[in-house]
Amino acid sequence: MDDKILRTTRELIDEVGYPALTVDQIAARAGVGKAAIYRRYASKAEMAFAATMYEEQLPPLVGTGSLHGDLLALVRAFHVRMATPAARQLAPALISEIAVNPGLDKRFQDTFLAAEQSLFAEIIERAVARGELTRAVDPAMAHLLVLGCLASALYIVNLPVDDAMVTDLATAAAAGITALADRHHSDPDAAAEPR
Amino acid sequence: MDDKILRTTRELIDEVGYPALTVDQIAARAGVGKAAIYRRYASKAEMAFAATMYEEQLPPLVGTGSLHGDLLALVRAFHVRMATPAARQLAPALISEIAVNPGLDKRFQDTFLAAEQSLFAEIIERAVARGELTRAVDPAMAHLLVLGCLASALYIVNLPVDDAMVTDLATAAAAGITALADRHHSDPDAAAEPR
Repeated sequence: MDDKILRTTRELIDEVGYPALTVDQIAARAGVGKAAIYRRYASKAEMAFAATMYEEQLPPLVGTGSLHGDLLALVRAFHVRMATPAARQLAPALISEIAVNPGLDKRFQDTFLAAEQSLFAEIIERAVARGELTRAVDPAMAHLLVLGCLASALYIVNLPVDDAMVTDLATAAAAGITALADRHHSDPDAAAEPR
Repeated sequence: MDDKILRTTRELIDEVGYPALTVDQIAARAGVGKAAIYRRYASKAEMAFAATMYEEQLPPLVGTGSLHGDLLALVRAFHVRMATPAARQLAPALISEIAVNPGLDKRFQDTFLAAEQSLFAEIIERAVARGELTRAVDPAMAHLLVLGCLASALYIVNLPVDDAMVTDLATAAAAGITALADRHHSDPDAAAEPR
């Protein structure tokens, strides 16, 4: 039944848009009772999140051989999915729902964000292994510099984001991550090594 | 009457929080009719935006003598106001309201965002004048790299943002802006100058 509810939710978001979506419509088309839906999902936003983002496959990591190339491939893949009309309608509603629904926030943090951040951890690890970064930086910070910026551009500032801007984001993030690795490398704590 | 409505709105946000705020409460305490409120503001979100952000004074630009220093001073000043409990409640609600209210989006773009971006234009101009940047970069991109990231951290990812993180954001943004200036400097278009 879960699959049917989620598939119907995706169909209806595409057809009528997220703002006009109702739980009644989903119940009618999926042939399930509203009570069954509300046992699973506390709100329309939570259901739409589960339908479109929660179990989504992450884009595969492309090993391009450089930090900048890896970040560019990743941000391009995320841009495609984050800039769809359905995502641009749903994300702002989810942002406000997460702020007042601790359970949804926890699910968002533990599943969606954690999976996204693990991609950045892998990219950083590869850059360190190549000697491109002097040391690892916090994957959550790298995630913020790339996808946090992109989410702000798409969902808060409502900028038209084209490939030139996506490329600039990757360039700025690669430079920023490199600067953070260098900065932490020259911390007093790190200077305690033998010279 | 405008002043009274907005002052009352600010008071009530501090007292009961944005989610529990109602137009009825504001009308009762301010001693005005609800019709008078709705003639001015289309929604609770728009009124709260006007009360807390629309006419807000921007932080003064501190000339520190370096791009990194100027960005750090700016992001620290914005962090103080963006991380208040009232802002953390209001911003996510505003994000979802702006997405479905073109009039509010236009006001947000024309007043609030335009003013914020002008601060970044000034910081970039100073860095170019000092020779620290090889050329100007788009102030909207610089704004995104600093305040877009900070807004994502506070309002989407719900990270605890401390001064170490604010400092890292300024470091990454300064490196990112420098990389964008250098990159555009080495564009084929720019190479048409005499050598």
